[in-house]
Amino acid sequence: MHTEVPGPKSKKLLQEYSEIGGGGGAVAMFLDLEKSDGCYVADADGNLMLDLFQQIASLPLGYNHPALKAAHQDPMMQAFAISRPALGLLPPKEWPQIVQEAFMSIAPKGMTKVQTMLCGSSANENAFKAAFFAFREEERRKAGVKRAAFTQLEHDSCMNNQAPGCANHLSIMSFKGGFHGRTLAALTCTHSKSVHKLDVPAFDWPTADFPMLKYPLDQHKEENAKEEKRCLDMVHHLFEERQATFRPVAALIVEPVLSEGGDFHASPEFFKGLQKACAKYGAAFMVDEVQTGVGASGQMWAHEAWGLEESPDFVCFSKKALLGGYYYKDHYQPPGGYRVFNTWMGDPCKALLFRAVVETIKKDNLLDRVNVCATKLRSILDRAAKEAPAFVNNVRNQGCLAAFDSASPANRDKLFSTLRNNGVFVGVNGTQSCRFRPPLIMEPEHLDQFEKIFMDTLHKLKAAQ
Amino acid sequence: MHTEVPGPKSKKLLQEYSEIGGGGGAVAMFLDLEKSDGCYVADADGNLMLDLFQQIASLPLGYNHPALKAAHQDPMMQAFAISRPALGLLPPKEWPQIVQEAFMSIAPKGMTKVQTMLCGSSANENAFKAAFFAFREEERRKAGVKRAAFTQLEHDSCMNNQAPGCANHLSIMSFKGGFHGRTLAALTCTHSKSVHKLDVPAFDWPTADFPMLKYPLDQHKEENAKEEKRCLDMVHHLFEERQATFRPVAALIVEPVLSEGGDFHASPEFFKGLQKACAKYGAAFMVDEVQTGVGASGQMWAHEAWGLEESPDFVCFSKKALLGGYYYKDHYQPPGGYRVFNTWMGDPCKALLFRAVVETIKKDNLLDRVNVCATKLRSILDRAAKEAPAFVNNVRNQGCLAAFDSASPANRDKLFSTLRNNGVFVGVNGTQSCRFRPPLIMEPEHLDQFEKIFMDTLHKLKAAQ
Repeated sequence: MHTEVPGPKSKKLLQEYSEIGGGGGAVAMFLDLEKSDGCYVADADGNLMLDLFQQIASLPLGYNHPALKAAHQDPMMQAFAISRPALGLLPPKEWPQIVQEAFMSIAPKGMTKVQTMLCGSSANENAFKAAFFAFREEERRKAGVKRAAFTQLEHDSCMNNQAPGCANHLSIMSFKGGFHGRTLAALTCTHSKSVHKLDVPAFDWPTADFPMLKYPLDQHKEENAKEEKRCLDMVHHLFEERQATFRPVAALIVEPVLSEGGDFHASPEFFKGLQKACAKYGAAFMVDEVQTGVGASGQMWAHEAWGLEESPDFVCFSKKALLGGYYYKDHYQPPGGYRVFNTWMGDPCKALLFRAVVETIKKDNLLDRVNVCATKLRSILDRAAKEAPAFVNNVRNQGCLAAFDSASPANRDKLFSTLRNNGVFVGVNGTQSCRFRPPLIMEPEHLDQFEKIFMDTLHKLKAAQ
Repeated sequence: MHTEVPGPKSKKLLQEYSEIGGGGGAVAMFLDLEKSDGCYVADADGNLMLDLFQQIASLPLGYNHPALKAAHQDPMMQAFAISRPALGLLPPKEWPQIVQEAFMSIAPKGMTKVQTMLCGSSANENAFKAAFFAFREEERRKAGVKRAAFTQLEHDSCMNNQAPGCANHLSIMSFKGGFHGRTLAALTCTHSKSVHKLDVPAFDWPTADFPMLKYPLDQHKEENAKEEKRCLDMVHHLFEERQATFRPVAALIVEPVLSEGGDFHASPEFFKGLQKACAKYGAAFMVDEVQTGVGASGQMWAHEAWGLEESPDFVCFSKKALLGGYYYKDHYQPPGGYRVFNTWMGDPCKALLFRAVVETIKKDNLLDRVNVCATKLRSILDRAAKEAPAFVNNVRNQGCLAAFDSASPANRDKLFSTLRNNGVFVGVNGTQSCRFRPPLIMEPEHLDQFEKIFMDTLHKLKAAQ
């Protein structure tokens, strides 16, 4: 480390960028991507940091991985990049095979189909649409109407945003503390921080409580089971209330770990209970694996840890998948073309890169490596919780999706910025949590280095208090 | 041309692709992108077609342009592609300059800032958010409340999707026949075809009529002026009605040419009238140039033809800009960070490519070329309208954004597919229109070839009727 972060060069660039908008007003520092390598990120001021956050959990193989360099040199890459096809209308002849190899080869068990999009928000919003289509088809079937036979009133009213053409009675249920994106329907399902939602119109869709578990889990079994039951009861109540008021819920969306909200976990039984509730009320069970998918949990998909007998109806991805999209079951195939559609429908360049990611995960047994590192990371955090509980408590993880709370937002913020100045970059979430989202290529040696800096930082912060 | 389109290889690939979802169910054929060149697209069956639609109007320089090949070889391209940064949090040090050169160097007059996104839908939805923020700030200012000072009730209620935290009283006004994207809020403003909207919930936002002009324009001056006045009156009426019922309109969004809906044009006076109405009611005037921007109209931005004294408040782009985003005025800078935010906030690879597009447009005087081709294309279509009016009438254009109607949907469909089998690929839109969206590199010689095939096709179709 040569300077505090952000250093003078980052500050100068920020000033320059602010004059043309500043890109959302949340830039932390500027990077030197060519100098970044593996688990280490380089900034514009020549600092090199151990990066355990990896571009908001979006880099599966760290920086400048050789397998991705090779994929970038594929001649197809150039053709796809400079003559970008409209994948929904005119895909390149290589596309079905790429989709097969990159996405279907790691499809969660029971998921037969996949739709690519560009980002997590568009993945979720289009999955919502597919769920609405299926729910309305089922409503029509029950009413004895032929599949996709729309009435003139439906055709006419939808053009003016009104029922019956627009299914304005339907909704998506989501959870307090959940995050599903920032476009307006995805944002309606997002409840992680008020700053995301203030002043933006939302749909009148229901929000259930997500269990707030107490840690360590083995000392709070009864309390936590009660809390999970309370939340499940609330889910059932909301389904029933909406059904009784002719506004049924078409899908329920949930993350395996509620990440942006503060890394909230729940038991496999809780998620099984959600799936059962969805089945009871005819709603799609939609698992948002945008942040948890592609190996970070120690399994390819975090929901595989639940041991479901039947797969979810939708599994949404983005971030480490390098582009957005969703897996779905046959039942949710849209009834006809152009119902789920847009100009690009994804990006074949990102799919080529993701194919190389999938090959690397398999070839290098990266899931095994994640599990080894997860155990080690957990033991470091447990040690820290004993030695500096004002800064580290409520340690929790599923694989390398790990997090802890500090005793206050101020302590968390102090720890985060001191760590960064000491050369370790972690993520923050919730009001007073830090989260770890390392790349799948992390090795135990990286964690040795982390432990040294982390414990050192904690002891100094503790002494200064 | 070796086969009918789609040929046997495309059909086989389609079968294969359908088994894993089929990508929206609207695939027309599969392409050979490496063999495609300039204005010509190659398909999987070895057919080579003059492509006047260019991936739904999204290729500015046609296929495999040398300037984009060079940009693809930029060493930064590899770094950005394989270590993709979260642009809103940790942009690369080169980013402010790239944004300056690629986007600000061609900003519409008076637009001081730009925000990149990934696609047109996310561009529009985030522009909506920025408009809602500004409208609420103004409401607070009028009420004597300090900027961005949110009440506890606002913080709490928004987490449950309710007012006052969510600005559920606000809306965006849009036009019948308009298209602004497919995510749910963008789709609420889309009214081009019912198949886009059926069974999807929408916000209760107002829709105004867009003028349906009669052609040729010089023979229907009085009628058309009356029609435009009727639509402007409706816009005023909707603004007033919403204001009177405490549901004010925060922004009005309109395309310079309503493209997906059927290439509906209006006079500069009409658009000036819209801007005046927005100013009167305190709404943002938002111009959606996703399909019309970046040179196709003969000017960099199609709205420049209106001769506005003051620029619009937002100009949204995507497609030929190779990634989505929007220009905005200082007044619409979000009040604080993380209000407009997501993981990727665009894609620096596409921005590098777009920088090369902008340089090429300038260096090769492509706007001049577009204007030369526009005149020639118009004269070909006018000739066709005289010789085969059952297939070609109501010819209209702004630069190379050209279109015509057929006398019936069946005639249009027949013309489209016959042209395709004869080696010319055009776009369809509305119920019975064909549209032209050639690349900016098209030369008059391409139009000579088009004219020959087009007139030949029309005469044969006419003879067969």
